[in-house]
This record gives sequence, C-alpha cells and structure tokens, in this order.
Amino acid sequence: MTRIKLTIEYDGTPFCGYQSQKNGNTVQDFLETALKNYLGESVRIYSAGRTDVGVHARCQTVHFDTAKEVNCFNLCLGVNLLLPAEIAVTNAEKVDDSFDARFSAVSKTYCYRIYVSAVRRPLFRTTYAQFYKPLDVQAMRNASTLMVGTHDFKAFQKSGSNLKGTVRTVNSIDILQNGDTLEFWINGNAFLYNQVRIMVGLLVAVGSGKKTLADVSAMLDGTRTNVKTMPSCGLTLEKVFY
Amino acid sequence: MTRIKLTIEYDGTPFCGYQSQKNGNTVQDFLETALKNYLGESVRIYSAGRTDVGVHARCQTVHFDTAKEVNCFNLCLGVNLLLPAEIAVTNAEKVDDSFDARFSAVSKTYCYRIYVSAVRRPLFRTTYAQFYKPLDVQAMRNASTLMVGTHDFKAFQKSGSNLKGTVRTVNSIDILQNGDTLEFWINGNAFLYNQVRIMVGLLVAVGSGKKTLADVSAMLDGTRTNVKTMPSCGLTLEKVFY
Repeated sequence: MTRIKLTIEYDGTPFCGYQSQKNGNTVQDFLETALKNYLGESVRIYSAGRTDVGVHARCQTVHFDTAKEVNCFNLCLGVNLLLPAEIAVTNAEKVDDSFDARFSAVSKTYCYRIYVSAVRRPLFRTTYAQFYKPLDVQAMRNASTLMVGTHDFKAFQKSGSNLKGTVRTVNSIDILQNGDTLEFWINGNAFLYNQVRIMVGLLVAVGSGKKTLADVSAMLDGTRTNVKTMPSCGLTLEKVFY
Repeated sequence: MTRIKLTIEYDGTPFCGYQSQKNGNTVQDFLETALKNYLGESVRIYSAGRTDVGVHARCQTVHFDTAKEVNCFNLCLGVNLLLPAEIAVTNAEKVDDSFDARFSAVSKTYCYRIYVSAVRRPLFRTTYAQFYKPLDVQAMRNASTLMVGTHDFKAFQKSGSNLKGTVRTVNSIDILQNGDTLEFWINGNAFLYNQVRIMVGLLVAVGSGKKTLADVSAMLDGTRTNVKTMPSCGLTLEKVFY
C-alpha cells in the first residue's frame, strides 16, 4: 500500500463545492472518478479541508492509498486527461503512511480578491468580488492587526453554526493594493466555516467607514455584529503548509 | 447628434470574436443590441479594431452617434444590465464629432500571457497560454529589442494574408516574469492580422532555443520561417491610446 499526496488546482465556479455530494458535481467526486479510471481501483481521497460552492484552490492538498505501482508524474498527466478543464492535479508525490492531508496540516493560506469599480468588470468576474466605492486601505490594515493572533472567533462563523472549540490562530494578514484591486492574504492554523469571508467582510466595512476598530474588538470578544459574508467567488485556497 | 466614446471590457472565451457575424455571437452584436434596447434606436458602433475568437479586451474602444439625450454614467449601468456577464461597458463619455475610435487611435497596447508548467493549470486556462518548459527570458528580451522600431512585418501576418502596406511601428516590448508566469506587453501604432501572436510565438521559440537572433532578423527582413501562432486565449487588448 502506497500513500500518495496530490496537489490540486481548481476553478470552483461550476462545482457544488469540494466535498462529495449525491449529485456528483463536486471536485472530490470528479477526482475520485478520475483516479478510479486511471488506477483501475476505487480510492477514497482525504483533503486538507472542504471548500464552499464557488471557492477556488491553487494548492488544495489531498491524500489517498493505493495498492498499485504508481509513477507520480505519469499519474498527474494521466489523471488530468480524465478531469474537467476546471480541475487539475498539479503535483503528486509518495509520502509516509503517517502523512494525513488534514491532520498533518500546520497552517493554510487563503487569498480574498476584490476589485473596486462602480461598473462590473468581466475579466474579474469569477475570481474577484466587486466593491463599488474606494476603500480606506490603511484603516483596513489597522483593523487587520487586531485580528492577528489567537482569538475565539465564534462571532466569525456562519450563523447557525454551533461548533464547540472556536479558538483559532491567525498568523498573518497582508493587504496588497495594485491599481483598482485588493488582495487579502490570510494565514492561520485553521478556520471556522465562512471565517475568512466574514473577516474580509468586516475589514471592508471598516474600509468603507461602516465599522470601527471598536466593532472589530467587540467581534473578537465574541459579540456578533451585522457583517456581510463576502461572496465565495473572491476566495482562493492558496496553500496548505505541512 | 451626439458622439459617444465607450470603453469595453470582455472575456472573449465564449464569443466568435469582436466583429459582427450572421450567427450574432460576437461582442459587436451583443453591444449593438444592448444599445438599441437601452436607447430605443438602432446604432452602429465603430471600434478601434476587431479582435479574434477567444481574444480578450480590458479597454477596447468604440464610438457611436445617437440622437438621444444621454447621461453617460447611467448608460454604463443600464447597458451593462442588458449585456452577457462576459461583456461590460466600463466607461462612456461624450466626444467631439471628429473623434473616431479607429482612425484617431495613436497606438495600442496588447498583453500576451503565458504560464510555464508541465501540467495544465485550471486558474490560468482562459487568459494564459501554457508553455511546458522553462524559457530563457534574457534571450527573449534580446530578441524583442530587434523587433522594436519601424519594420516591414509582412512575415508576421497570418499566412494567406495579402495585405499591401505591411510596415508597422512597434514602440515597446516589455517582458515581465512573475513566478511561473510571463507577460509580453507590446505597444505599437497598429498591428497586422495575428502579428502579436506570431511575434510572441517567435520570442517563445527563441526562449526555448529553437530560433536564434539571426532568425528574428531574417523574419524582420521579410523571410517567413516556420513560427507557431500562439493561441488566442493568451491575448488581451489592454489599451487604445488617442
């Protein structure tokens, strides 16, 4: 039995998220089918974490076990021929049995992308969210420094979530501005459901003068306030660190 | 009668190019229909130049004349509601009757994008071309300097073209490298059919050791050699200067 680690890139636009569903229109379903057809045996893949409908990944990481002899580079090319254009295996390597795509992960980096424009921009439509008015980047950077560190992020999860254990560590937030686009690069040890999209929603509210640093502190103290969850299309899982 | 200048952005992926065709699946057809429905009168639009099937534009420029009273910002928002997601008007302004989107243009900037990867990359698939092996960027920059200036580019047009008057001026070529991506920014007074895609094809051949600076000089002297026309998806009309 050999354990294989795969790096996966996908444009999440046409899929019902990462995780397997009955309708089969998920990244996991397409990948398991392609691997089955390539290897000639059924495999179950385990990922670093699910991504939502419409969320993209540049380096999602998964592992699976196979009884077959595998040449890793040939597997990349062969499996890619069996996947839709929006999904590809970009790397494959043999790993020790102790490696687990989810539990061995030390941290993850997400990037959330926004373009600022009063009119919609077709070339940004699938990987950026639109914001209509200029944002105060310095105010957002000030707010982001409050979020860095270990906090109880219970006010930053999808409403209705009742997860126990909502303490997470955000290692860094970098906000890059380039012309009319903004990138929010966020690294953390793990994230709650919708946490990144709510964090960016709060930063954007600060940048547009609708929320203050005091509101950010209150959220970090567990007081849920009315913050927009940013649209999924702007979010990309950029990297999983092991 | 008022003359209006529009700036248009489009993702060329789903269309049969810019220029109107019987099947109606072109940028010009969608734009003329949307303007007709918005203004309540038929208009004919004139562009800075056609773009091929699959080619994108960040700032294509067109003009048209209308007998209606027009608020330019409202026109942007209103017409965008009548256009497919892949096309938008990003700016509208009233211009003097002497303005002509094609004949007033002083120069155009195109960008050709490539990613270098042995495996396909879904997030690059619609706006970049794939190249499989590393390219010698310095060799490509050296070759590009030969192309800058006024030359007879007759060997750089689509085979079968019999255009008279093939002298054009390339003002600048900048090759930007960022990780595994390359951008070829090319500004010139005007371009022959497929000229940019053939220029980049020749540069890539130099970068992979298949062509030499002598081959570039020979092409610029009018000797056609076997050069790949790069795929349309990597090409974007970035800006038209007036």
